[in-house]
Amino acid sequence: MSILISGTVALDSIHTPTEVHNELLGGSASYAALAAALDAPVQVCSIVGRDFPAEHRALLTGHGIDIANIEFAEGRTFRWTGRYHENMNHRETLDVSIDVLEKFAPKLTAEAAAAKVLLLANMSPDNQIAVLNQVTGKPFVIADSMDLWINIARAGLLEVMQRVDLFVINEDEAKMFTEASNLVTAGWRLREMGPRHVVVKKGEHGALLFGPDNAFFATPAYPLTEVADPTGAGDSFAGGLAGSLAAAGNASPDFSDLARGVVRGSVLASFTCEAFGVKRIAAVTPQEAASRMAEFRRCTSW
Amino acid sequence: MSILISGTVALDSIHTPTEVHNELLGGSASYAALAAALDAPVQVCSIVGRDFPAEHRALLTGHGIDIANIEFAEGRTFRWTGRYHENMNHRETLDVSIDVLEKFAPKLTAEAAAAKVLLLANMSPDNQIAVLNQVTGKPFVIADSMDLWINIARAGLLEVMQRVDLFVINEDEAKMFTEASNLVTAGWRLREMGPRHVVVKKGEHGALLFGPDNAFFATPAYPLTEVADPTGAGDSFAGGLAGSLAAAGNASPDFSDLARGVVRGSVLASFTCEAFGVKRIAAVTPQEAASRMAEFRRCTSW
Repeated sequence: MSILISGTVALDSIHTPTEVHNELLGGSASYAALAAALDAPVQVCSIVGRDFPAEHRALLTGHGIDIANIEFAEGRTFRWTGRYHENMNHRETLDVSIDVLEKFAPKLTAEAAAAKVLLLANMSPDNQIAVLNQVTGKPFVIADSMDLWINIARAGLLEVMQRVDLFVINEDEAKMFTEASNLVTAGWRLREMGPRHVVVKKGEHGALLFGPDNAFFATPAYPLTEVADPTGAGDSFAGGLAGSLAAAGNASPDFSDLARGVVRGSVLASFTCEAFGVKRIAAVTPQEAASRMAEFRRCTSW
Repeated sequence: MSILISGTVALDSIHTPTEVHNELLGGSASYAALAAALDAPVQVCSIVGRDFPAEHRALLTGHGIDIANIEFAEGRTFRWTGRYHENMNHRETLDVSIDVLEKFAPKLTAEAAAAKVLLLANMSPDNQIAVLNQVTGKPFVIADSMDLWINIARAGLLEVMQRVDLFVINEDEAKMFTEASNLVTAGWRLREMGPRHVVVKKGEHGALLFGPDNAFFATPAYPLTEVADPTGAGDSFAGGLAGSLAAAGNASPDFSDLARGVVRGSVLASFTCEAFGVKRIAAVTPQEAASRMAEFRRCTSW
């Protein structure tokens, strides 16, 4: 099955306690697409400026990613600069330059509109809705989000949640959004807001999946001893999940398809953390991914 | 196989945001013994004062727990008063009265000394060593500890770690003890300090097990939506783990015995959190425990 991923394509500058890297390929759609492309054909819908480096474009197309729905617009590409602190769990945004993102009006080709799995990677709910309004293929829809949209675009986010099959959010955001101090309670409350399934991403602690009829799945995370750069881990998770569903090829994924997708997303996210930017996830081979899945099964079985 | 559990037997007064309960049966050995007794014969080695309520004594013996190694001494029973804050994850100690614990000098009966599984539940490293020095049965030894001993009795704790097969500690304590911000790194560093196996307890996020030859196991936690009182959850975890090993009956437990024990401990700890003090863990039937184990397997399988 084919996957359409809409989201941001960005130039990221990342500071960690030990390193600084500037104008790396970043953005939610980039990470998600590179993860998903390990499992299925991927099209990306996004916008970049005329300054978007040819090498970044070549990296995407070199992974077989269809960029026919990426608009190359007048102006500068969206840029993000952030800094991670000692434990790598918390980051601060140092600078954001929206630029071309401000005028983004997604327009899907017929082929993109007909995709069977749609991942609305993290971007503004208005843009997510604009994509949703154009799909023709009755896709399985996954939406990822972040705290910014809970704070400044809650109405749009609530509409998105009503229209998706699976809503993905991280631990702190789930608690903030639902005002629940218990994370399991937060997950069930998010389901009541519309989506048939909810995934709560917990970083180093794994992920939780909530579904209909009290269906519940929990997985720990792949045990990383060194995290070089966690940027894009959550996007890679969502992409890996979408890729797994597309590879399974079930037009109406069942709960076990989703559970396996959550594990796939978690394992692919672990690669992303191992190097700066997309460097590691872009280098993963299907064999490496399969080997890590098998290792992960061994170290979670009892 | 029989289990010997040494640790504290206490009277706990517990404040949560919604409730206060005074002079409940508490202490590391009480919680651990009630959990372990679901799976195997348990003897407890501890000390209480003459004021120790007959009903608490009856609760222990009513669960088939052998109290021949609990000393009923002149003076008052150890008392602890603590308060949990809104999210139930952090607590502060309001008052501690050591009393009879100060003069505790464990003396094992021949039967206790011959136990095949020894759980050194949380108490001072000196007392843990005093018990270790008396065992005759070449037991599999598990030791649990806490931040207090890392801070005030580090030398004793390091000796304990050299002499046990499995060392159990919680997430924050593991990081503090090893000065590692990465929890997986912390677990491997703890192994280098002596114990053949290390378990890091993560509360709502489950647990990690580290063993020889890079053997690693991770499990999420049973998904509780309401935590009435987390006191004793860690002790119940250690007791459930010890009980599982004794029930398996392997004199040299292998890594899969330990992984199963970690899950058993995690599942039994979840019961403890459901009511104040030992109320819920003391009421669990073998059928309830088995049913929750089966449910847990379902919601962690992929």
